[in-house]
Amino acid sequence: MSDTTVGVVTETASGERRVALDPDAVARLMPGARVLVEAGAGVAAGFPDEAYRAAGATVASRSEVVAASTVLAVVRCPDDALIASLRAGQLLLGLIDPFDNLDRIATLAKAGITVAAFELLPRTLSRAQSMDALTSQSSAAGYRAAIVAAEAFGRYFPMMITAAGTARPASVIVIGAGVAGLQAIGVAKRLGAVVTGYDVRPASRSEVESVGAAFLTSSVAEGAAQGGYARAMTAEELAAQQAELAERLVGFDVIITTAKVPGRPSPLLVSSETLAALKPGSVCVDLAAGARGGNVAGSVDGSRIVTGNGVTVVGAGQLAAELPTSASQMYARNVVALLSSLLHDGAVVIDPSDEVHANVVLCRDGEIVSAPIRKALGLDPLAPPSPAPETSDEAVSVS
Amino acid sequence: MSDTTVGVVTETASGERRVALDPDAVARLMPGARVLVEAGAGVAAGFPDEAYRAAGATVASRSEVVAASTVLAVVRCPDDALIASLRAGQLLLGLIDPFDNLDRIATLAKAGITVAAFELLPRTLSRAQSMDALTSQSSAAGYRAAIVAAEAFGRYFPMMITAAGTARPASVIVIGAGVAGLQAIGVAKRLGAVVTGYDVRPASRSEVESVGAAFLTSSVAEGAAQGGYARAMTAEELAAQQAELAERLVGFDVIITTAKVPGRPSPLLVSSETLAALKPGSVCVDLAAGARGGNVAGSVDGSRIVTGNGVTVVGAGQLAAELPTSASQMYARNVVALLSSLLHDGAVVIDPSDEVHANVVLCRDGEIVSAPIRKALGLDPLAPPSPAPETSDEAVSVS
Repeated sequence: MSDTTVGVVTETASGERRVALDPDAVARLMPGARVLVEAGAGVAAGFPDEAYRAAGATVASRSEVVAASTVLAVVRCPDDALIASLRAGQLLLGLIDPFDNLDRIATLAKAGITVAAFELLPRTLSRAQSMDALTSQSSAAGYRAAIVAAEAFGRYFPMMITAAGTARPASVIVIGAGVAGLQAIGVAKRLGAVVTGYDVRPASRSEVESVGAAFLTSSVAEGAAQGGYARAMTAEELAAQQAELAERLVGFDVIITTAKVPGRPSPLLVSSETLAALKPGSVCVDLAAGARGGNVAGSVDGSRIVTGNGVTVVGAGQLAAELPTSASQMYARNVVALLSSLLHDGAVVIDPSDEVHANVVLCRDGEIVSAPIRKALGLDPLAPPSPAPETSDEAVSVS
Repeated sequence: MSDTTVGVVTETASGERRVALDPDAVARLMPGARVLVEAGAGVAAGFPDEAYRAAGATVASRSEVVAASTVLAVVRCPDDALIASLRAGQLLLGLIDPFDNLDRIATLAKAGITVAAFELLPRTLSRAQSMDALTSQSSAAGYRAAIVAAEAFGRYFPMMITAAGTARPASVIVIGAGVAGLQAIGVAKRLGAVVTGYDVRPASRSEVESVGAAFLTSSVAEGAAQGGYARAMTAEELAAQQAELAERLVGFDVIITTAKVPGRPSPLLVSSETLAALKPGSVCVDLAAGARGGNVAGSVDGSRIVTGNGVTVVGAGQLAAELPTSASQMYARNVVALLSSLLHDGAVVIDPSDEVHANVVLCRDGEIVSAPIRKALGLDPLAPPSPAPETSDEAVSVS
């Protein structure tokens, strides 16, 4: 039978509790594909093996899953051992984080594995919305950021009027009004905090205000803005903007930062000087914490640090992993949507003329085909495609 | 000078982050009393020594505070070492938890220390509202229960409608609609969960519904109810009620239990059979966890346990301590209110004809004067007071 076999393994990244497919997604894939799940792969996300079996999947050992799969769906980039066990022609699909895994990408390409990375999805394309794992996972991280902040904070978020007196509500600022930031704003508002959103893009104002928060922007960035988008600021402007922001941060009880830039170091938004000026008991939740630094001085991904003046810094670069059930459910739907686009008559068929395929597939047939990844690896651009590509004939089949 | 000196020490109970007075309360006490604070006593609650100094307090060592204080304000019952350092005539005031500290009460009484316990406050008395530390701390615990539940739960609390599909909201049941339960219901509602409140008292229905939750009660208890309050159920009725509840619990994602009975073992509401029947990923937060068992089978105060079928059981008997800043602020106001009633011309004067004083003071002059505590200790009741007490003359001064 020519049906595709989709494999799911236990994630290899430390602290990762998500799983690439939940039992619901298995059921949705089943008509066109067979699904193999490593025993225990979904347990940390709340999905026991029986639930996968009930949905029609086969539960097996990791080596069996890897050996029998045409497609391996993962959440994050596999570790070196798992990569070494893959074989030419297999499709690996996930949030591969390619710019921070360039060595692994090179290894995968060399081994002839086809890699599709959600990070490279053309997110503005309407039909790509249902595949947009960056959005679904940022949304989970943003929700979680507000919950973690409330949990780390020693005071009530809402105003409390009691017989023993009145407590003022917490003042929360969320820096970066992207998907995660807007979600964090919404949840902090729900909990009764007084919330401010900050973004250098003046165009964010309406989005921030639509979720009920006050909007704060940089007068420097506003000066640099052209149309709806800000031009890249000069180093001087950047310094002035950060000084302006630092001054304003001191009045807040809770600071949630979400300024992560793929493939670039995270901008430092809360310096050690600003940290030292915050009130004891303040909380910073840094969604950019990770290998490329973070938005908050000294933040360590996955750790809580309390500074000498009593400020809690939560390094929270992988918050979606802490909401594993919901995050996996949403992620699995993204996987199914992308697979539906890649599957053709029971086989994976990559069509370079399809805007989604052309972007999301970063290597195949031993070659790195993604322009931004080639650039990041210092490789020459590929020769431009032939002027009139014969779409379906050129389509590449993954066996 | 005859001014009272109020002392505050670092709490001795393990995990206790609250402090009996915050700097604001110090400022409110200052006209009539001198305040001594042990160095570092407020740090875990977010109040550094400088803040106490700025409010007019003197920061000193523990032994200096204990030696110089007329009144020692605590959150929880001091440990044996601290008790041993107290001297006759001092007033110890706090959430002493007398029924679970009977040995210590006997020691304190024998040593001639005057003890006032918030637990014995006549809570229905209008002027006692501002002194009601059980209410202020239960409120903090209830808020915290919902936050902890959201943090321990692997899914969104609110319904989420996204490009990757819709997530149903979490279903939460709060058992026990007292102060903590109602607060937990309100916060879980704020977060977007679908919330049900359960109480054996049918009269709770209006309170639960007023915070926007559905109300569930026991048909057995309803049968036993007379007027607004339930009569004590028979053992058979109790078993029938618990079987009925167990059956209904299985459908919920999150169970928050708040059924703590002072001086009595906590009723087991979620048995190990019920736990085993819950869905993987479910969360139980047990506010009754502690020395007298808890409402959830196997719950351990201060710990998180994950059962074999993937249910998280959070033992949460001291949740107010995890919201230390707000809980201390509210508590300190209760302390100031009670002290205002006890202080008279700069000295502590206990007036046995004052309903608050008569109840809250459980021992003085070497004798245990509280009827319920005498009963718990197996002592005979005291002789009834003389028919016409000469109130102010009989008042007992604490030097």
